[in-house]
Amino acid sequence: MATRTLRAFVCSCSIIFLFKLNVFSCQQFSISFQQPSDCGVDSYFDISSLSCVKCGPNQVSSKSGLACECQTGFRVLVSNGASITCQQCPEANQVVTQDGYGCIHCSGRVGENGKCQCPKGSVLVERDGNGNPLTESRCEACNATEPAFSAPDRTGNRCVRCEDSFINSSQSCVCGSSNVQAGGMCFPSNSLPTSVVPNVIFSQLASSVVSAWFSNFMYSSAAACLLFSNRTACQSLGNMCVMNMHSFSTINNDACGLYNTVYRTTAAQGSSQDISYWRANLPWLYYGDQLGLASRILQSEPLPVGFSFKGAQKNSNIELRAAVYSVRGEFLRWEGIGGGNLQLCPDTPTRQQSAFTFGTAYKQSCVLSVSELLNGYPEPVFYDVFLVIQKPQEDKHLLAVPLLNTKQQFNGQFTNEGSNMNNWLLTRRLMLVDTLSGRQNSLSSSPGVIRVASNIKIGFQLVPNTQKGQVYPPLMTVTYSDIPVTDPSTQTVTVSFSLEYTMDQEEARIKTDIALGVLGGVAVVHSLLKTASWKRRIASPLIDLQTLMKFLVFYAGDLANVFFIITVGSGLYWLIFFKAQLFVSVLLPLPAQEERFVVYVGCAFALKTVQFLHKLFVQLSVDIFFIDWERPRGKASKHVEGSGEAKSQASPVSIWRTYFVANEWNEIQTIRKINPTFQVIAVLFFLEVVGFSNLALRDPSSDLRRSPEAYKPPYSLILRYGVASAMWLCIGLIQMIYFTIFHERFVEDKIRQFVDLCSISNISMLLLSHRCFGYYIHGRSVHGHADTNMDEMNTNLKREAENLCGQRGLLPNSDTQTFQISITNRLRAHYDRIIEPINRRSGPSRLVDASANPCEQSTKAYHTMNRFLGSVLDHAHREMDYIVKDKLLFERLIGMEFIEPLDKSIFYNDDSHSFADVLFYGNEAVLLVFDTLFFCVVDLGSQNFILAAVLTYLQQLVFRLIRNGMGRRNLASKTLVDQRFLI
Amino acid sequence: MATRTLRAFVCSCSIIFLFKLNVFSCQQFSISFQQPSDCGVDSYFDISSLSCVKCGPNQVSSKSGLACECQTGFRVLVSNGASITCQQCPEANQVVTQDGYGCIHCSGRVGENGKCQCPKGSVLVERDGNGNPLTESRCEACNATEPAFSAPDRTGNRCVRCEDSFINSSQSCVCGSSNVQAGGMCFPSNSLPTSVVPNVIFSQLASSVVSAWFSNFMYSSAAACLLFSNRTACQSLGNMCVMNMHSFSTINNDACGLYNTVYRTTAAQGSSQDISYWRANLPWLYYGDQLGLASRILQSEPLPVGFSFKGAQKNSNIELRAAVYSVRGEFLRWEGIGGGNLQLCPDTPTRQQSAFTFGTAYKQSCVLSVSELLNGYPEPVFYDVFLVIQKPQEDKHLLAVPLLNTKQQFNGQFTNEGSNMNNWLLTRRLMLVDTLSGRQNSLSSSPGVIRVASNIKIGFQLVPNTQKGQVYPPLMTVTYSDIPVTDPSTQTVTVSFSLEYTMDQEEARIKTDIALGVLGGVAVVHSLLKTASWKRRIASPLIDLQTLMKFLVFYAGDLANVFFIITVGSGLYWLIFFKAQLFVSVLLPLPAQEERFVVYVGCAFALKTVQFLHKLFVQLSVDIFFIDWERPRGKASKHVEGSGEAKSQASPVSIWRTYFVANEWNEIQTIRKINPTFQVIAVLFFLEVVGFSNLALRDPSSDLRRSPEAYKPPYSLILRYGVASAMWLCIGLIQMIYFTIFHERFVEDKIRQFVDLCSISNISMLLLSHRCFGYYIHGRSVHGHADTNMDEMNTNLKREAENLCGQRGLLPNSDTQTFQISITNRLRAHYDRIIEPINRRSGPSRLVDASANPCEQSTKAYHTMNRFLGSVLDHAHREMDYIVKDKLLFERLIGMEFIEPLDKSIFYNDDSHSFADVLFYGNEAVLLVFDTLFFCVVDLGSQNFILAAVLTYLQQLVFRLIRNGMGRRNLASKTLVDQRFLI
Repeated sequence: MATRTLRAFVCSCSIIFLFKLNVFSCQQFSISFQQPSDCGVDSYFDISSLSCVKCGPNQVSSKSGLACECQTGFRVLVSNGASITCQQCPEANQVVTQDGYGCIHCSGRVGENGKCQCPKGSVLVERDGNGNPLTESRCEACNATEPAFSAPDRTGNRCVRCEDSFINSSQSCVCGSSNVQAGGMCFPSNSLPTSVVPNVIFSQLASSVVSAWFSNFMYSSAAACLLFSNRTACQSLGNMCVMNMHSFSTINNDACGLYNTVYRTTAAQGSSQDISYWRANLPWLYYGDQLGLASRILQSEPLPVGFSFKGAQKNSNIELRAAVYSVRGEFLRWEGIGGGNLQLCPDTPTRQQSAFTFGTAYKQSCVLSVSELLNGYPEPVFYDVFLVIQKPQEDKHLLAVPLLNTKQQFNGQFTNEGSNMNNWLLTRRLMLVDTLSGRQNSLSSSPGVIRVASNIKIGFQLVPNTQKGQVYPPLMTVTYSDIPVTDPSTQTVTVSFSLEYTMDQEEARIKTDIALGVLGGVAVVHSLLKTASWKRRIASPLIDLQTLMKFLVFYAGDLANVFFIITVGSGLYWLIFFKAQLFVSVLLPLPAQEERFVVYVGCAFALKTVQFLHKLFVQLSVDIFFIDWERPRGKASKHVEGSGEAKSQASPVSIWRTYFVANEWNEIQTIRKINPTFQVIAVLFFLEVVGFSNLALRDPSSDLRRSPEAYKPPYSLILRYGVASAMWLCIGLIQMIYFTIFHERFVEDKIRQFVDLCSISNISMLLLSHRCFGYYIHGRSVHGHADTNMDEMNTNLKREAENLCGQRGLLPNSDTQTFQISITNRLRAHYDRIIEPINRRSGPSRLVDASANPCEQSTKAYHTMNRFLGSVLDHAHREMDYIVKDKLLFERLIGMEFIEPLDKSIFYNDDSHSFADVLFYGNEAVLLVFDTLFFCVVDLGSQNFILAAVLTYLQQLVFRLIRNGMGRRNLASKTLVDQRFLI
Repeated sequence: MATRTLRAFVCSCSIIFLFKLNVFSCQQFSISFQQPSDCGVDSYFDISSLSCVKCGPNQVSSKSGLACECQTGFRVLVSNGASITCQQCPEANQVVTQDGYGCIHCSGRVGENGKCQCPKGSVLVERDGNGNPLTESRCEACNATEPAFSAPDRTGNRCVRCEDSFINSSQSCVCGSSNVQAGGMCFPSNSLPTSVVPNVIFSQLASSVVSAWFSNFMYSSAAACLLFSNRTACQSLGNMCVMNMHSFSTINNDACGLYNTVYRTTAAQGSSQDISYWRANLPWLYYGDQLGLASRILQSEPLPVGFSFKGAQKNSNIELRAAVYSVRGEFLRWEGIGGGNLQLCPDTPTRQQSAFTFGTAYKQSCVLSVSELLNGYPEPVFYDVFLVIQKPQEDKHLLAVPLLNTKQQFNGQFTNEGSNMNNWLLTRRLMLVDTLSGRQNSLSSSPGVIRVASNIKIGFQLVPNTQKGQVYPPLMTVTYSDIPVTDPSTQTVTVSFSLEYTMDQEEARIKTDIALGVLGGVAVVHSLLKTASWKRRIASPLIDLQTLMKFLVFYAGDLANVFFIITVGSGLYWLIFFKAQLFVSVLLPLPAQEERFVVYVGCAFALKTVQFLHKLFVQLSVDIFFIDWERPRGKASKHVEGSGEAKSQASPVSIWRTYFVANEWNEIQTIRKINPTFQVIAVLFFLEVVGFSNLALRDPSSDLRRSPEAYKPPYSLILRYGVASAMWLCIGLIQMIYFTIFHERFVEDKIRQFVDLCSISNISMLLLSHRCFGYYIHGRSVHGHADTNMDEMNTNLKREAENLCGQRGLLPNSDTQTFQISITNRLRAHYDRIIEPINRRSGPSRLVDASANPCEQSTKAYHTMNRFLGSVLDHAHREMDYIVKDKLLFERLIGMEFIEPLDKSIFYNDDSHSFADVLFYGNEAVLLVFDTLFFCVVDLGSQNFILAAVLTYLQQLVFRLIRNGMGRRNLASKTLVDQRFLI
């Protein structure tokens, strides 16, 4: 080791020296890149130093470039395994022997390589039987006739027995003139056409190529198959037919024509394995060409074994097995499909294997480089694919999987391209990449065109109404791409492999249509009722355009509900029945079949939006008035300006209670029965963090957690919608229950608080949502006065808590403070007359100049209205009296009053605070469904739950701001409370 | 085709018939599964029908099982390529010829296969030179001496020239007794030890295996390498040393011992390519064994070409190239590394190729089945890896990549396992899977142990302070696993392949420490100042335990800010400098180096939490009082109960204005300068939907969108923190700007609204956040009265808008309504005396019985306090007077008052509404930083932004509820406003 140290030191020094000359020229441990092809003819590539080294004198580099050999005419004099010495043969006529070590005289010709050569049918002899070198080489002719039947072997050194077919057909090793010699064999004259068409049709390129492979071997394969029943030859012939896309026509001397000729001719040999289309000795390529045969094969008899996703009898493994043949027709092996043999796209084994789990929609696709294909697939291999059927206590059976080659031509027609199953011609045998048939001049030339199975799809169809997971035999659809090779390193081809599961969706479609029809009818009736109710409430008997519009709006809302029910129902149906089934009985609709569903969801959303906007508009235009029951308590002394004299007048009733109530009303406008932001966040949490979104994947697994390495199937839009809407409704419901059962009872109930506040502040509220219909909150204080100081307020509150005073209700001894009211036309007319100056004022109010423009008229109107409504409620107006009654159950149910308030207004007791209908609070169902649909529509468009959540939050925010802002403006203009107090 | 139709029909019928017998037995097109190994000795596998078929008489199946051949002693009589007829040889002594077609008498022995056999050194002759069959076979001995030098060829049919080494060493084809025959070669006696140790050491299993490969070829390789300079033999010897883990010791007859012997012996041959460790003709395996050589090689000279991520000179491609050798020592090819040759885990080419993008932290790992390895790697191949260096306008250069084999033993020590670079022994030549050396008895037996390169890591280290992207030569670290093969089908091995990029992080660490020290010192000073300010404000000169606690709490807050600044700074530094650099100058810290950073973030969060909780606690215990300036207007007549007589008394001042103001104060407690929910949602949107989270991936790309097919590197915690915190702060800042510049000016400013409300409602507010410090909002109405009706309110508002009345300020002709106040001890003492009865009451107030328990004392205290504070503000108390002044700039800056209020209280003008400090509104910075840290800490723990967003939202919700609920309770207890009015 000491030597090495020294050397390293020396090297370092020299490096330091060189370093000064050129800062980068001496990179330690770096070498220049050379490869065997870089070395010239007189150099070889030294595999130990990885550089080119010059050969010795009279030497040239060998074919591999890794060693030297003597140049032509020179023999090896000394060789020690690593280096040789070469020497010219001493005598003039001598040439180098075959082994390169000796010199010999030639009796025959001298070949181009400077060695002796013998004529055809002869062998070259340079040593005698005991290995002693001869001075002159001999050419000995092999005896071709009986009994020798000999011919030179491949190396030309010995005479050996020649090929059987020569002996059989001409009783000699020379093929007689009446026979046909082809592909190294000798055939007697026969029924096959002697001139064959060695063309491969590349239909996509509208061109055909004279294939060297076909030229060389097509006739011989066909003949050997027909005459000698040579199985390898038969397979080879079949392979050529496959390479020609199974296409056949009336021509009988192309590949498939020859196959069919042999097929017909050998009918007497019977069939293999009792399958009529499978001729003995021949490969099985066709299923026959009758019309409608395809549907009989594909849809008449289910597989004997059903698939099940879960449970003890779980059977979701699709086991495919293929008999693999080489292009020469040799049987290579039985191969289990999987692990990438049909999947050209490289991927991890786990992901590739998940293709063969029943029910998992699998699609893998990628772009491959043509040069890689040329290197990786010098010869095509052929697959006869079978489905393994393993029944309990039985041997394995294999079911032939039919193949639909979309590029197959039948008499020049692409019969398999359409979707009409009756025209299909099913075949067998598949190849993946064919770089062989496109070679034109020789088998070693590079191909002009290659053919790739760019799209392989295995489709399973469920037997209708099966409960046992029965499916029909699978169908493999293959589409080949023809690629003219121009620049392999830059050319690419897109390939894909997919599994598809279908079932007959007609029944589901019909059921959906029926549900849609029935519920649509109900919706019409319901909308008509609502319209009638509305007509009554606005006290207008005329059916005009407005009525029609109103009907349409109501109908939109109801129809939206119908669509929503149907879509959520379908979503849940697929979610539950697909994901939870033991034995497979339903399969998901394909993406193309989901379109109808998406349209339904779109309809639901659009119609719900109409309903929501209408609700919003109605809420923003209700009439509100706060009736202050407080009466002045005494006289306030006031200095009259200018006179200096004190004058006594009624002390003013403070407006602050009205401000307080209005402010609270303003605040409860947008509260809801649920917390909408929490709703969005919770839905997002369950979908994306807990992993419910994984339920929407197109596979039978119902795991919420997936390994990142596992194959991730595409999402099903229906399942996404089902999961998302179920999540919204569930969490919404839980929130609603929590808020109703717990929060409003034990923490805070804003609506009840408002009613209490009315009562404590001695202020009633009149709400007219329609012309002659509305709500009344009775807030007359039981203490007579509320406009008082803290002592009295506390005393009042205490008295009430101790039940020392009367009840708060409108009627004596009743507790009912909230009413739905149907008012007479006369009352409404009076109301309108008083309110007119206020309404006139209600332009867009501005912050700055609102107080600068007092409009005394409107405050006067306010006082008039206050007095008027107070007197009406006190039954002071005989002609505008009212009665209080309970609503009938049926009236409640259909939301319509039966009695028209002709003479007297009617106050319906309403303990359920239905005045909240003019707030967000009372319309939780509409809002929740609208939010749900908004979320789902965004998600269907973007397939992104996070985006959907963000946009839903923004939508909620925007509509809340609109409702708050415009509701506040409406409140200010209708009640004359300055906007500055609505904070 | 008609035949086929008919057949199909017949078949269908028979199927229908059979169907009735057994519902599943007749599956159309199904066959039973058979394979060649299932067929017995007298059957062959028919490749066309895929079933076993019986052979003819006297036939047995061939070795492949795909055809029949004549059984021993029978010759082929007729053969037509597909079927044969066999016949026993007619004469008794005849045996079958080698080609199987003829019968012949044997002159020599008859072999086990029933054919003639000749002794060693002789060839079997069955035909004469012209191919005519002989009646009796001959055995002819090959002449082994000069000049023939012949021996039988491989088939034993001809005499050919024998191997050079025999001729060289013994001038004959027989290896002489003084020579050594080994591995098919003949060596003269030499310096190599004749008995070699053919053991392979499997150090993990603490066992060694006598390897058949080593036994067969080790001596011959060494000898041929040494004696004949046979390069292939040298490579083969080197390969054995690699298979033995490069381990060497003083033993000189194991693989590496022989290599080193040859290395030493051939010193005179010089070195290859000017690299001193690379002996001519030998493979380069070692870099020498001096101490410290590894660091010289790895860290002395950078690569001549720098890496750059972007720009015109983009160079981020790591091109590796390997010279590939077979186990026999043949040079196979130059191979570009990539496309999976070193990456044992299968994956898509795109993902695999992304390993070789400079700066992309790559790690691929998977579990491989041992049986797959056994099938896929029958023999190991060996890689000499080089890094391709392509300078502009120069030829390609290759830099040898040193290898660190962690399992290498040097004199029995694992020197490479530690992290001490000085002990390392660098080597070259890598293998992936070795299933050969573990074969014990013969080369065809299955191996007892296999060795897999289970962990390959390529590490690049950046040159310190480089601006040009210079790196030191890469180091490949390989760890082999030894797996004893017991049950290959179930055994697995985990393999991984990774690229790692490091730079010296010491400088960054030191800088961080310095920043931490400096800022920590500033924090101490700041906290001391704050404590001093606090001491002054509570008017206590004593330094007690409470003071210390207060100091610690303040210090926690300041230290949290220090940690926050440093972590955000580091995060942004790495984010910007790593992702945006053109030429590589920084590389990310490795995951192990991120620990310190995570600890810092944790500290920041913990300390910030302390600060936040402290703020919350302080806010929940402030003293508040509403001073009502309203005085009664006149006398109200009141019926005195019992007497029936009307009695006149001062009409009460309505409490409703106080309620209104208190209610508004209650509502603004938790408003913030930003919308916190929007903040969370917006951050989530930008991170997950827009894709900013992709910036946190450990690769140089700064694309926000990544293809789902692309390789996804692991996340860097520092970058995640950097992106997330930057996002929080940015969006927070944008929101703050929006709310300050636009929303508060043009839409709504809740704080200003509250101040205005005070003024309009004639109510002042006194807030004491400390014992002797607080805030005062002057709300005395400029109109004298506010407790009035709508007409007057509107008139007042109008007058004020038209500037017809005085200004709202505390001082005449000033506008300043808000003050910070420092009150004297005396005033505070008085305040406390009055407030005492109220405080006594302040138990947990309940909804039900609050009004039932009036506590007249406390209302009395309320009135007393109202009067007292009113008179103080009116300068009515000489001994508790106050002055109004401006705060000094410096006082503002350090947040401390210089003047102690000894004699008079001091009211500091405060136009910036700093009373909001007792609300969430005034503490936006703390809240924002707390939210940011909360979000980031959750994310660092879970690496899930969605979860972080959800939890942050919940945290905000919970703290808002706590602040609201407890703040409301505090408000109610301090101001005597009933909780029912705080809605």
